[in-house]
Amino acid sequence: MTYIGAVVSAGRPRGPYAGAAERRAAIVDAAFTVFAAHGYAGGSLQKVADLVGMSQTSLLHYFPKKSDLLLAVLRKRDEMGEVVLPPGGAFIDAVLRQVRANETIQGVIELYTVLAGEAVTRGNPGREYMSRRLAGIRDEYTRKFRDLADAGRLRPGMTPEVAAASLVALWDGLQLQWLLDPDAVDIASHLQSFFDVIVLPAESPAPST
Amino acid sequence: MTYIGAVVSAGRPRGPYAGAAERRAAIVDAAFTVFAAHGYAGGSLQKVADLVGMSQTSLLHYFPKKSDLLLAVLRKRDEMGEVVLPPGGAFIDAVLRQVRANETIQGVIELYTVLAGEAVTRGNPGREYMSRRLAGIRDEYTRKFRDLADAGRLRPGMTPEVAAASLVALWDGLQLQWLLDPDAVDIASHLQSFFDVIVLPAESPAPST
Repeated sequence: MTYIGAVVSAGRPRGPYAGAAERRAAIVDAAFTVFAAHGYAGGSLQKVADLVGMSQTSLLHYFPKKSDLLLAVLRKRDEMGEVVLPPGGAFIDAVLRQVRANETIQGVIELYTVLAGEAVTRGNPGREYMSRRLAGIRDEYTRKFRDLADAGRLRPGMTPEVAAASLVALWDGLQLQWLLDPDAVDIASHLQSFFDVIVLPAESPAPST
Repeated sequence: MTYIGAVVSAGRPRGPYAGAAERRAAIVDAAFTVFAAHGYAGGSLQKVADLVGMSQTSLLHYFPKKSDLLLAVLRKRDEMGEVVLPPGGAFIDAVLRQVRANETIQGVIELYTVLAGEAVTRGNPGREYMSRRLAGIRDEYTRKFRDLADAGRLRPGMTPEVAAASLVALWDGLQLQWLLDPDAVDIASHLQSFFDVIVLPAESPAPST
């Protein structure tokens, strides 16, 4: 996971404020690594503190609860995977580009997969976050598929809502299979096949008059 | 999770062999509950021992390593979710019946989701098991979709292999969304929509001559 450590190795802090912000960032980076390797339940604050080279007491000054740290890690992951979707059919290309980009940050996808799995248990502090996040993505994709439906390009039998939830599910599930066996599935080409069967071509409007 | 405990409350053991088998089963039941609540990484052997009412030393007599216990739990889960798929298009109905049955054993699905997520991390003892299991299901579904393709019922653009991996992915991903927000998705009806768009109706063979 080569993306870890950039903040840790950044220059000396200038003044107490810069120092605090950089230490926070370094703690989140370390927690990212620890949670990715051990999950949230199995990743201890002590391991995070060890990795960042501070005492657990100092760490608790920045993140009073382990769950605060989890939420910071989840937000960081979202920032790393953030993508702005263009309207209409161009969003399909954007999704496929995002898939290709994700293949280069396998550690981030691993962390997401572990934390999403853990989040289904009652009382897990990431549960509400993950639930809201998936609902937000479903809403966003529903709007995109509605644009396609309005243009007569969604195959009959598929609603925008079902297409959106299915795209999210398919993507998550294919990531799981890819992480377990990278040669078994090609996420982008499998998603492309899904789009091919549910989205009709843009050209050739039917002669209506 | 009402399915837990049946073995624990079963009658008194008759003889040492029956006792050992029943204790093993009770330990697996307890591990099921503990791993479902805390994940594999976060679920300690001590918690399992406490729940089953024995010392950790006694427990280690039955399962020398924590990973042995994980594999026993995964096998138990498979037995609980086992389904025999009929040939041809009837397998679609069998899949949908299985989905409805799974909705009644939410705790089992939760455990599967947590353990599948954790399995993607390097060194997780469930990784090979989960990887093989998904490969086996993909192979099985590929054969079913090939039957449909041979009958001219798989929509052009979808291969049996891609349809199979997509079905597994969609199912896993929808389970995640359902566990996080049961009102947001209906797994069976979403899978039905997927089948509706990729599988063509059986009737009306095209007039070929």
